[in-house]
Amino acid sequence: MTNRIHNFGAGPAVLPEPVLEQARDQLLALAGVGMSVLEISHRSKAFDEILAAAETNIRALAGVPDDYHVLFLQGGATLQFSMAPMNLLPPDGSGAADYVVTGSWARQAAAEAEKFGAVRVAGTTEPDGYRRLPAQDELTFSGDAAYVHLTTNNTIVGTQWRLMPETGETPLVVDASSDIFSRPVEVARHGLIYAGAQKNLGPAGVTLVIIRRDLAERGAASLPKLLRYATHVKGGSRANTPPVFAIYLVSLVTAWLREQGGLAAMAERNARKAELLYAAIDRSGFYRGVAAPPHRSLMNATFRLTDDALEARFVAEAEAAGLAGLKGHRSVGGLRASLYNACPVESVKALAEFMAEFERRHG
Amino acid sequence: MTNRIHNFGAGPAVLPEPVLEQARDQLLALAGVGMSVLEISHRSKAFDEILAAAETNIRALAGVPDDYHVLFLQGGATLQFSMAPMNLLPPDGSGAADYVVTGSWARQAAAEAEKFGAVRVAGTTEPDGYRRLPAQDELTFSGDAAYVHLTTNNTIVGTQWRLMPETGETPLVVDASSDIFSRPVEVARHGLIYAGAQKNLGPAGVTLVIIRRDLAERGAASLPKLLRYATHVKGGSRANTPPVFAIYLVSLVTAWLREQGGLAAMAERNARKAELLYAAIDRSGFYRGVAAPPHRSLMNATFRLTDDALEARFVAEAEAAGLAGLKGHRSVGGLRASLYNACPVESVKALAEFMAEFERRHG
Repeated sequence: MTNRIHNFGAGPAVLPEPVLEQARDQLLALAGVGMSVLEISHRSKAFDEILAAAETNIRALAGVPDDYHVLFLQGGATLQFSMAPMNLLPPDGSGAADYVVTGSWARQAAAEAEKFGAVRVAGTTEPDGYRRLPAQDELTFSGDAAYVHLTTNNTIVGTQWRLMPETGETPLVVDASSDIFSRPVEVARHGLIYAGAQKNLGPAGVTLVIIRRDLAERGAASLPKLLRYATHVKGGSRANTPPVFAIYLVSLVTAWLREQGGLAAMAERNARKAELLYAAIDRSGFYRGVAAPPHRSLMNATFRLTDDALEARFVAEAEAAGLAGLKGHRSVGGLRASLYNACPVESVKALAEFMAEFERRHG
Repeated sequence: MTNRIHNFGAGPAVLPEPVLEQARDQLLALAGVGMSVLEISHRSKAFDEILAAAETNIRALAGVPDDYHVLFLQGGATLQFSMAPMNLLPPDGSGAADYVVTGSWARQAAAEAEKFGAVRVAGTTEPDGYRRLPAQDELTFSGDAAYVHLTTNNTIVGTQWRLMPETGETPLVVDASSDIFSRPVEVARHGLIYAGAQKNLGPAGVTLVIIRRDLAERGAASLPKLLRYATHVKGGSRANTPPVFAIYLVSLVTAWLREQGGLAAMAERNARKAELLYAAIDRSGFYRGVAAPPHRSLMNATFRLTDDALEARFVAEAEAAGLAGLKGHRSVGGLRASLYNACPVESVKALAEFMAEFERRHG
């Protein structure tokens, strides 16, 4: 690790060290090309290969069926909050969509969709401070919705869907930004999966979109050009200049995921890391987990101490001990450790040890 | 240069070698931070400093007046083709804008604007294959246009405005993607300047927007959230997760531009490089320049040989000699050498020598 510290940031987040090393070694000149990936044309053979590798890896990892497109876009999940309703609802605003509201990001997605059609809240745990997820029988889907939207993992409060709810024939649209490829995913159960890359897939600046072919064609020609999925399908993710370097890193991270054994192996490793950390949280009562235990996220473990001052002290002492990014989201406070794919088990062990020691000193 | 070759690509394009070296040396761990810039939070102190440095450098280089915002967005110039009319025209489609059409990109910008209001072509050189720019008296501006749009440098055919035309009180909106910061710019003469970074400012994946305060507030609240300039003003370019690494490189490239002596020094150096290359083109008649000499671009020199086969041979032999990216745009063919800020004079000399030698062998 040399001069690198333990990074528990919620995103942008830690990347696999072998990926960073490879990027560094090729930063001035990609092997056989004589230019940096930061300098190559997006129409070059070198980039053809990078883009194809990224797509191939993603298709292999997730078993993406042939009738789904894999696209690399810009604008993050927030732009998808707009694009999903703009493409999947009729342009005259007459359509409707169901939103499951389980956190701040889900609420923002729903608020954005209201600009483009009727939004029906199929269920929400807002009264519980989003500390749990709704059960299937708390969800009411309208039969005529164009889609059902949900957030697979709620980064801020720290909950995560284990099983997606049943939505019948209505396409399921998910924001999977904070747990994409942390476990196997049944793509065919979804109409659209989108995720900013900066937690589990690569750096900030590129968004993965996996969309069923028929849904990709729904957007009206009157939409802003780059906000139509069909534009990116036609352009093969190169309708305009794509974020070349970010896609290159996605190609490296997804290759690394395959080397690690794929998504089943990642799920096992992520479960082990989370188990380790939640055990440290639950051990004595000194720390209190925020999310309801059955809905705890394997990606973002949220916890509290008795008071704000002690939490601030925890963050400061952890930082001094080389454990960074443990402050909770500014909207809710508290503490949060993010355990994405590239977070090594050694980092989690170091955190658990620090927690025990902090408790000895301040408990 | 070791294993690096001469890169004349039209964009993404060559970056300053000292910038690449700095990025490489910090790729695993930013000094004093212990994480890669690819991993830092966009809310971290480290990124606060990067973002501030990028903005400070840009304000210093271009003398950006206080009543202009400097924003870092995603989506490239193509997304600006949508955002400019969406924000500057009324949302009911009742507005109008004047477009000066001097090339393929200008035409695409105008076509996109038609979705959002009336587009009036203030002048075009399409009948001349865009090989020249219109004179002031060939331009007709409508008095009630919300803005006049033009492309400062036409990458494909290789023309460049020396002086912007007079547009009276109507705000001038420019796509400066391919000559931004290649020479001094009078920001106060513009309402909005936008540019994809990947030619003169950094890598692909970030767009620079310089916009007058009052214009930034015009976009309706009903617009898609990230397509409103006001969203990005309010969020300080962090309304959502920005492309952290691309902005970091912009901060390094703009620092490098300041070290080189700023935009006046770059203009002089760019003029010298272009002079060298156009002299090589004009020397004997073996090569023929495409653009009308008074309107020749200092950024993209376009030229032809007697036939396509010889041009293909030129590209192949140049590539073998370590001179890359010389094929003209796929829409027009021919040859093109791009001479952006970071293209060293040594590369231009090497190209001129290769051209003379190629002529000796094939002339």
